[in-house]
Amino acid sequence: MRIEIICTGDEVLTGKTVNTNFSYMSQKLEDVGLSVQWGTTVGDDRESLLRAFQLAGERADAVIVNGGLGPTVDDLSQEVAAQVAGVELVLDEAWLARMEEFFRRRSRVMPSNNQKQAMLPATAELIDNPIGTACGFALDIGKARFLFTPGVPRELRRMFEEQVIPRLLARSGMQTAIVLKRFHSYGLGESHVDALLRGVEEIVPDGSVKLGFRAHYPQLETKLTVRGADMEDIRRTLAPVEREVRKRLGNFILAEDDQTLEGVVLGELASRQASLSIVETFTGGQIAARVAPLQGAERVFRRGTVARDLAEVCAAVGLDRASSAGELTRETAEAVARAARRQTGSTHALAVLIGLDEGADRIDLGGTICLAIATDQELASRRSRIFGGREWVRLGAVEMGLDCLRRYLQGLPVYERIDFEKV
Amino acid sequence: MRIEIICTGDEVLTGKTVNTNFSYMSQKLEDVGLSVQWGTTVGDDRESLLRAFQLAGERADAVIVNGGLGPTVDDLSQEVAAQVAGVELVLDEAWLARMEEFFRRRSRVMPSNNQKQAMLPATAELIDNPIGTACGFALDIGKARFLFTPGVPRELRRMFEEQVIPRLLARSGMQTAIVLKRFHSYGLGESHVDALLRGVEEIVPDGSVKLGFRAHYPQLETKLTVRGADMEDIRRTLAPVEREVRKRLGNFILAEDDQTLEGVVLGELASRQASLSIVETFTGGQIAARVAPLQGAERVFRRGTVARDLAEVCAAVGLDRASSAGELTRETAEAVARAARRQTGSTHALAVLIGLDEGADRIDLGGTICLAIATDQELASRRSRIFGGREWVRLGAVEMGLDCLRRYLQGLPVYERIDFEKV
Repeated sequence: MRIEIICTGDEVLTGKTVNTNFSYMSQKLEDVGLSVQWGTTVGDDRESLLRAFQLAGERADAVIVNGGLGPTVDDLSQEVAAQVAGVELVLDEAWLARMEEFFRRRSRVMPSNNQKQAMLPATAELIDNPIGTACGFALDIGKARFLFTPGVPRELRRMFEEQVIPRLLARSGMQTAIVLKRFHSYGLGESHVDALLRGVEEIVPDGSVKLGFRAHYPQLETKLTVRGADMEDIRRTLAPVEREVRKRLGNFILAEDDQTLEGVVLGELASRQASLSIVETFTGGQIAARVAPLQGAERVFRRGTVARDLAEVCAAVGLDRASSAGELTRETAEAVARAARRQTGSTHALAVLIGLDEGADRIDLGGTICLAIATDQELASRRSRIFGGREWVRLGAVEMGLDCLRRYLQGLPVYERIDFEKV
Repeated sequence: MRIEIICTGDEVLTGKTVNTNFSYMSQKLEDVGLSVQWGTTVGDDRESLLRAFQLAGERADAVIVNGGLGPTVDDLSQEVAAQVAGVELVLDEAWLARMEEFFRRRSRVMPSNNQKQAMLPATAELIDNPIGTACGFALDIGKARFLFTPGVPRELRRMFEEQVIPRLLARSGMQTAIVLKRFHSYGLGESHVDALLRGVEEIVPDGSVKLGFRAHYPQLETKLTVRGADMEDIRRTLAPVEREVRKRLGNFILAEDDQTLEGVVLGELASRQASLSIVETFTGGQIAARVAPLQGAERVFRRGTVARDLAEVCAAVGLDRASSAGELTRETAEAVARAARRQTGSTHALAVLIGLDEGADRIDLGGTICLAIATDQELASRRSRIFGGREWVRLGAVEMGLDCLRRYLQGLPVYERIDFEKV
């Protein structure tokens, strides 16, 4: 079934409002195995709405229209829908009564312009809105069934889940299910991972597995979309592909599906009743800020220390400045991590120290990252050079710090060469 | 001039990624007096891309295409553009060399699939991407000029501002100059500011000044778009309006135009050769992270301390736990700020302590914020209650901490009632 979404409204078209209704609807449809083929955004403009409805009516089987059901003159959805469908607008007495009741229960008198919200195309089927005055409706335009929904997110969500999705599923007569499996990694570029995973889709020869990526530096998301008759079928199809992806990406997989790197780190620490102190420099508190505010972190996160100056870092963790000289080396990072652990009494300490290259910000400006992880018994450390400008180095260092801690906690090597570094 | 935007990519179409690139581009165009009439979203699908390009080429004068310029097989923009324009793809040797250089400077060998990014339609004009391997390009399809841009937001933004907007302005033949004057504030809601500024547009009766807002919690941006014959004309028009906005919003204006709150704070501190220590709790390092990584902060930012537990906070700054009891009050915040300043020897210290309400996250979950600023001679402090769930409280507290420091440094009252708090 071919589905399209039309989002209407000047707010969305001018970018004043980020269009989260679109991503919400599209995601929800993916979740039930339906997918959107085409999205259109137009303003509160009669001519554009008319043309958008006509085009979608020629292409699609089902079209969801969002917005334009309000009481003001710039809300045009009913009017244009009636025009394109070639029918009159008629007053829906039942909905008018519902609206009057809606206002009465709030001890208000219904303003007269709200009556407009009960004017529906003659052939329309009303779709209930239990929490607002903008009712939805459905009617045929061209070869497609059009479903009109309110722009207010809260009202849309309720109507979408309770009324729109069931209608679409019934219409699609679908028996196939769909699953999206995701792997998150740090340290390998998109084309590198693409090369590493060459051929994994072909493990299932019928084309029901599709490989895709989403790069959001410094992380990369590797996605497998799998279709099947039902969930059991999908699980069977997915299992060997999943295994192969895990084998090929190995230690670089830092989390799967809805997990996050910081969540995995927190989970590892919490499961062994451990506690964490973090010392950082140019990352400025960003490493701590990924972990400290999480739910449950109040029992794990002990202390974060931030300073831009290495001597200040040493002073802050109670290190004798003379002994460690304030030079940026792995040994300094190790000494700082060890001192931070001792100072706070945490079971684990992570120190991420950065020496940023001199000079103005530029694309090949680099930074030296010396990081260390200390526990009561052990020390692990790593030195890396990353390039790409101030922000790139900063973001990379935050991720590297957290990922090395994840590796350490999972018993994996803290050092493995990554694509972003210069050895 | 009729402008359309086509956003491509399964990520955006399936709603995995909220389409902020669309709102970004649309806003930027509005800011320079251009506007978008139609938006289309399609996936990484040859047939859809083809049809979207054709339709937009029939309707528009200029079309911005976003995404699909990556090195992987699902990136189809160049290929489909060439097909619709009826030309061959040819290797752009200059861009290939630029890419090889890009990888060389990062000490990496260019993967062979990146070569695809240098294959452009024969008639295309290359648009530089100074910070990535996806070059943009422009060519004619139908009656429209198409401009292709990368999907990575950082690369899009750079290319859009430096390369796309000037091309569109030139094409539009707009001879009037436009200036966008922006005021940033924290603490007043959009409708409140709208009410405060009623009538300011009418100070200039010819309609050449337009007032607008952009709310991105916790800050609000108030925008004046001014048209005129030339810059001199605009400056004359703008001056009295600007003065009036400054008068009405008063102490709430924290920065103007490209300034940021953290930049203003850093500037105030740097200008008096001051230094800063920050102590924070549930904000997790985010306050420090706004200031510490800035250029020039290495001479100003002294030390940041983060802990979730109040007793740990006190211990970290060398406060006797017994004396301050570990209760969340203004007095505790004052004692912590004073101790942090003494401990680090900085001229200024900011302490932002938060007591989050008990229970699961929910829309009416609140937090108590006690913040204090200490110098050698003075103490300023404030207590506030903010509601709206964990993230809302956290983000609000970061902004409030920095804004109170800004107010203190500018000699303004640290406490003034804001719309987000419950007294």
